[in-house]
Amino acid sequence: MKKLSAGIDIGGTNTVVGLVDEHGEILAEGSISTRKYHDFDLYLQAIADLVVSFNETVSEPFTLAGIGVGAPNGNYYTGCIEFAPNLPWGGVLPMAAKLSALFPAIPVTLTNDANAAAIGEMIYGGARGMKNFAVVTLGTGLGSGIVVDGKLLYGHDGYAGELGHVIVTPDGRECGCGRCGCLETYASATGIKRTVYKLLADQVADSSLKNISFNELSAEMICTAAINGDPVAIEAFEHTGQQLGRALANLVAVTSPEAIFLFGGLAKAGKYIFEPTRRSMEANMLKFWQCKIKLLPSGIDDRNAAVLGAAALVAN
Amino acid sequence: MKKLSAGIDIGGTNTVVGLVDEHGEILAEGSISTRKYHDFDLYLQAIADLVVSFNETVSEPFTLAGIGVGAPNGNYYTGCIEFAPNLPWGGVLPMAAKLSALFPAIPVTLTNDANAAAIGEMIYGGARGMKNFAVVTLGTGLGSGIVVDGKLLYGHDGYAGELGHVIVTPDGRECGCGRCGCLETYASATGIKRTVYKLLADQVADSSLKNISFNELSAEMICTAAINGDPVAIEAFEHTGQQLGRALANLVAVTSPEAIFLFGGLAKAGKYIFEPTRRSMEANMLKFWQCKIKLLPSGIDDRNAAVLGAAALVAN
Repeated sequence: MKKLSAGIDIGGTNTVVGLVDEHGEILAEGSISTRKYHDFDLYLQAIADLVVSFNETVSEPFTLAGIGVGAPNGNYYTGCIEFAPNLPWGGVLPMAAKLSALFPAIPVTLTNDANAAAIGEMIYGGARGMKNFAVVTLGTGLGSGIVVDGKLLYGHDGYAGELGHVIVTPDGRECGCGRCGCLETYASATGIKRTVYKLLADQVADSSLKNISFNELSAEMICTAAINGDPVAIEAFEHTGQQLGRALANLVAVTSPEAIFLFGGLAKAGKYIFEPTRRSMEANMLKFWQCKIKLLPSGIDDRNAAVLGAAALVAN
Repeated sequence: MKKLSAGIDIGGTNTVVGLVDEHGEILAEGSISTRKYHDFDLYLQAIADLVVSFNETVSEPFTLAGIGVGAPNGNYYTGCIEFAPNLPWGGVLPMAAKLSALFPAIPVTLTNDANAAAIGEMIYGGARGMKNFAVVTLGTGLGSGIVVDGKLLYGHDGYAGELGHVIVTPDGRECGCGRCGCLETYASATGIKRTVYKLLADQVADSSLKNISFNELSAEMICTAAINGDPVAIEAFEHTGQQLGRALANLVAVTSPEAIFLFGGLAKAGKYIFEPTRRSMEANMLKFWQCKIKLLPSGIDDRNAAVLGAAALVAN
């Protein structure tokens, strides 16, 4: 009987669950709304129901070899999601233990969502063969998975790679973490929205984005506006890239990676995000790193990399 | 016959060579002036002569198991010192290869001076038993050696740990590297001198430091002035600690160490540098790291740590 792994990618908005074979083929996939579930146990039950429903989706019979979870603030060492600011449940959530209870005898491994994306990139994507690289996830927030000498950088407590909470502007924008000036308040889907609103406040340029409320505005809309030549949208990407590039240059100074992969919603804006980011990164690196560190899009389809990475945790 | 390792610590002013046994005892030590040798080959010959002279210093006969070198801009991967701004010889210096030619059949290993200090700390100092920590050297400039999962973080090209060239203030102070706002322009012996001069320019407070020229002023003098209650000196340490603490908080976000060791001249200022640094680091870390990351002085005597670290490279 075929052995498959379940990969669970928990995002602030949606949770995607996939069933993955040893070659990285996703044989079944589904998603639930993360925000809909105010009760964490009901949320877990919905995930479990989705996994069980795959028995009917996949034609061949199979055994579930393991479950891998990529979650914001997921701690590899403890199996808990700890104080994730963009999830509806506060405190320490014993995700791995509770999932294990729903799937007795099946091993459950949990890590940070960005770490899962890095593992996915290393095993199935553009980082194949690389031993030192970073994956930066630009979603609702900003995460990073850093691979050093072929292994994920977890640090002493499992929380290494909190690049989104590097402070880039002292006394800058308020962050969900309770502090100010964190990178993710500038470089993320939420960050670029805030930048658009800042520009609309400061400038008089006409913009299609003036018709959209803050809550309605998405990174995709800003991207579409940029493609259509909207000056505010283009400038918002420019500002976002400046902040991100500067932070990546500092990341290079500390970890000296071969490449940095941009991943997630905002990375789909292509040249609108890559060009200003690359420019700012190059301008802020020491001379001997200039033109040497690759800044790349994910080598696998965005939607799947996190699921593949989570599933790959089972084998990793 | 006893097996001993030679540890060579190359500084801009002096080069210290020590003969170290397996317990970290320095059985012989000597130094030569780095600046005196305009010819790199003559410099190497002087080092070799010093090592050979140890045959007479050490009473017991011994074999030389290996030679470890800690050098500014030393590259572990290539064995070369590459474009070190504070050494008399420019360009790329094949240090390890040339020393090997002088000591045939004896392994020679070279790394960055801050990395050597980190290895010294791990094997003989306060980081014994730790697997994730960083050593920050506060000398003329600022260097760092970062240990991840028990191994030095070298990165793709051997240059990881350039914490001194993380940009902390965009468009800030001019740095020797040709850019602006690097951490070492604020947090180093040179950085605190610049801060003193900035404060003397901005404020009217009386200060003993008003009698000292820029070139004459040293970190030790600023420390002595602070101990004597000089308000400018105390405020200079406060500013230095603020910048350093913020950068260390960002380092924690990326690498999540168990401890950070401050090492070198400026670290000898004790509470004057540790207190503001710790305060700023705590204020700038994510909540779950607060009061958890140790900020410590080196666990070994400063002068010896670099030599011990270099010697320990042989075994490492």
